[in-house]
Amino acid sequence: MTETTRNAPMPGPGAGTLVNGLAADRISVLDRAVQYGDGLFETLAVHAGRPLLWERHMERLRGGCLHLGLDMPEDRVLRAEVDSLCHGRERAVIKIILTRGCSGRGYAPPDAPLPTRVVSAWPWPDYPAYNARLGVAVRWCRTPVSINLALAGIKHLNRLEQVLARAEWGGEFAEGLMRDPDGYVVEGTMSNVFAVTAGVLITPELSRSGVAGVMRAEVMAAARHLGMRCEERWITASELEKMDEIFLTNSIIGLWPVRSLADKCYAVGAVTKTLQWVVREALGLETESHPIA
Amino acid sequence: MTETTRNAPMPGPGAGTLVNGLAADRISVLDRAVQYGDGLFETLAVHAGRPLLWERHMERLRGGCLHLGLDMPEDRVLRAEVDSLCHGRERAVIKIILTRGCSGRGYAPPDAPLPTRVVSAWPWPDYPAYNARLGVAVRWCRTPVSINLALAGIKHLNRLEQVLARAEWGGEFAEGLMRDPDGYVVEGTMSNVFAVTAGVLITPELSRSGVAGVMRAEVMAAARHLGMRCEERWITASELEKMDEIFLTNSIIGLWPVRSLADKCYAVGAVTKTLQWVVREALGLETESHPIA
Repeated sequence: MTETTRNAPMPGPGAGTLVNGLAADRISVLDRAVQYGDGLFETLAVHAGRPLLWERHMERLRGGCLHLGLDMPEDRVLRAEVDSLCHGRERAVIKIILTRGCSGRGYAPPDAPLPTRVVSAWPWPDYPAYNARLGVAVRWCRTPVSINLALAGIKHLNRLEQVLARAEWGGEFAEGLMRDPDGYVVEGTMSNVFAVTAGVLITPELSRSGVAGVMRAEVMAAARHLGMRCEERWITASELEKMDEIFLTNSIIGLWPVRSLADKCYAVGAVTKTLQWVVREALGLETESHPIA
Repeated sequence: MTETTRNAPMPGPGAGTLVNGLAADRISVLDRAVQYGDGLFETLAVHAGRPLLWERHMERLRGGCLHLGLDMPEDRVLRAEVDSLCHGRERAVIKIILTRGCSGRGYAPPDAPLPTRVVSAWPWPDYPAYNARLGVAVRWCRTPVSINLALAGIKHLNRLEQVLARAEWGGEFAEGLMRDPDGYVVEGTMSNVFAVTAGVLITPELSRSGVAGVMRAEVMAAARHLGMRCEERWITASELEKMDEIFLTNSIIGLWPVRSLADKCYAVGAVTKTLQWVVREALGLETESHPIA
C-alpha cells in the first residue's frame, strides 16, 4: 500500500478530487466506468497553477467523445474545475476521467446518459531528473496490445493490457515497449515511442492500436515546424532496435531518451536533444536559449 | 434514464449491493476498476433463492484471478454475500465484480492490493418468453472484438468493444454477433454462439478473443455427455450463415435459437431443442421429462 499512500490524490485547500464539480472521492458502483470501463481519460501536467497543453488534451478528449458517443463537457466547465484544483500548485498532475455515467445492467448505452466527470489532482511524480538527461533503460513487454480499429488512438478506460504489461517488471526498467499480435511496435505502457534513422523521425502508426499521445502530437508538430522529415509507419521490434536514436514521450515525463533496449545501447543523439528542448519548453521546464542555437 | 430506473439493483430487505460485504452503493474513484477496468465480473442466475451454476462461475472467476494476478476471495465469503442477496428471491440476477482495489496513479499494480468485491442483485430481465421457443433475430456487428492472447477467454472489466457493438442497433435485434479483425466469428455481445452442421456441434475457438461462457461450458459438457460430436474451431461469418442450426447461450438467457441472421432464416432444429432442455434444467426452468425421451 506504499504506492497508494505516496500517490494518493493531494490533500490541500479544498478537496483533491471533484466528481461532477463537487468535492467527493466516491462514485456509484452503477457507473459504467466501474461496470465496463466505458469512458475516457486525460492526464495533464500542471505548472505554476496552470494545466499545460490544454487545447491538445481537449482536442483528444473531444475526439474520444465523438468516437464513443459521449457528450463532451463544456470547455469552460471542465477548465474551471481543473483550475480550481491547479490553483496554488507549482507542479502537479491533473487526471480527468469522463464516463458514460450510470445505467442498468447490460451493454446497451442508456438513452439519455448523464456523463460523470472525475477531476483529481495528484503529486508530481518523483522520476529521477537524470532520466531526461542520460536516458532510460527500456525492455520489451510480452503482453501484446490489441488490434482494434474501433478503439485505436483514443485514451479510453480499458487499460488491462497496460496493467498486465506493466506488471511484467519492477523498478529495473523505466518503461516497457508493447507490440501488436503481428509484431509491430505500438507504444510504451505509458508513453509513445519515437526513433531516428538517417535523420528521419519515425513513430509507429496508430490506426489499429495504441493511444495517440498529446506529447506525441506536440513533438511531431515541432519536428515538422523545424523542417525534419517525420513519418508515422509500421515498424517491427528488430527494425526499431537498429535505429540511431530512440526516445519516449508523454505529457508528464516530457521526453526521455532511451539509453538501452534489450541488449542494445543508444547515445542521446542530436535530434533527440533538439526535440527535448521543444518538449521542455511545452512543459515550462526550459526558459534558456535553444541548446543548439 | 428509463433503463436505469428499470434495471437498477433491487431494493429489498437489506441492501441490493454489498461492497466488501457491507451495504453500499459507491466505491472509491481510486479503485482500479474505475481507473483502468482492472478487474473481473460474473453474472449469475438466481432461482428459488439460490445462485445457479455456482461451481462453474467460481471456476471461471478463479481462472481470471490467476490470469490477472488477483487474490480469489474465499468461496465461503463470496457465497455468504451472494446468498444474503439471493435470499427470498424467486428469480433474480447476481452480478459479482472483483477489482484489484485502490492504488496510486500508474498502471503498476500495488505491491499488496486489497481487492474490492461488489456483489449486487438485479431484477430478472423481462426478455420475451418466445425468444427461447421461436428463436431470435440476430445481426452482424461492425465493431470487431480484439485479438489478445493475454485476455482471451476471461470475463474482465474491459468491455468497451461490447458497448460499442451493442450501440450499433436498438431493439430490432435480440443480439449482434462479433468477429475478430481477421473475420472469424467470436461471440455475441452478451452471449456465446453455437452452430450445428451435419449433426456436429460447433462453437468458435476462444484462444485469441472472447469470453468463455459458463453456459457455453455447460452446453459443451452436456453435448459430449449425450454423445454428440462437439468442436471448438475457427469459423468465418459466411461459414456460420450456411449452418443448419444456430443458437446463443449465456447464464441468464439460457439458450436462444437463432431464427434469422443477416438475410438467412433458420428452423429450431433437433440438436438445439435437445440442448435447450439441458440448459433449462440447469436454470431450474424445466422439471418435466425429456422432450425427446
